[in-house]
Amino acid sequence: MDTRFSSAIHALILISEAERPMSSEQIAESVGTNASYIRRVTGMLKKRGIIRSSQGVSGFSLLIPPEQLSLYEIYRAVNETEDVHIFDLHQNPNDLCIVGRHIRPTLSHMFRGIEEQAEREMKDTTLKDCMEEMRSRILQEENGEDSHARQL
Amino acid sequence: MDTRFSSAIHALILISEAERPMSSEQIAESVGTNASYIRRVTGMLKKRGIIRSSQGVSGFSLLIPPEQLSLYEIYRAVNETEDVHIFDLHQNPNDLCIVGRHIRPTLSHMFRGIEEQAEREMKDTTLKDCMEEMRSRILQEENGEDSHARQL
Repeated sequence: MDTRFSSAIHALILISEAERPMSSEQIAESVGTNASYIRRVTGMLKKRGIIRSSQGVSGFSLLIPPEQLSLYEIYRAVNETEDVHIFDLHQNPNDLCIVGRHIRPTLSHMFRGIEEQAEREMKDTTLKDCMEEMRSRILQEENGEDSHARQL
Repeated sequence: MDTRFSSAIHALILISEAERPMSSEQIAESVGTNASYIRRVTGMLKKRGIIRSSQGVSGFSLLIPPEQLSLYEIYRAVNETEDVHIFDLHQNPNDLCIVGRHIRPTLSHMFRGIEEQAEREMKDTTLKDCMEEMRSRILQEENGEDSHARQL
């Protein structure tokens, strides 16, 4: 299971929200992984110009405002790819069969149509949208706890 | 790499196009895998009422016309799921951190939005669409060969 994409969004929310730069160790503690994994992810985000190392202190800062940073950009950075890839093709169809010979280019084409729809939605969804969704969940939790506290 | 989905579409094109019922062995030969893998896939397709075993002979027939059989239905059958799943979530975010505590439900929600767009396209794409795309590629190949033959 590849969770680089979700780990990267988690890291970017922390980097964006933290009052002072967070180190790989601090990000890893929140993500629930080790610092070397986070360094690999942040290395990929740096390479695409999404974050940079903070000067003078250990940590990172965002180079693209959260409202301009799409999930599509984040996905492409941490998968080192241009396109979103969803479905794998079987590897060894039989070239001697007419269906076997044409199945891979045919399905590549059909799958690309589906992937493009996913990409469109990913381009329309920003890091800011994720942060706002999270904020509303945090508020719900706080309100839930308040009303629970009031009931006691 | 899970290629059950693309293998299933390949098998369904064969089942739909073959002049007489094809056995698991024959399908496996075209898909480039073994018959037990194909039996697993066809078992899933049978369970969802997409195909049935042909009576009297060894082989399968389609229960849903190709123009009514969406890629969404095929995907759900061979993944034994209701929803299309694209992105995995990291497993162990830290509950003691407010971002760590809310990241999984937040990203589940955002990812679902993307997956729904992919699902929409998969509902709009049928087995017939795949067969037509393949047919046009076969024609192109034949025309290419013809014009090449004429040049010789």
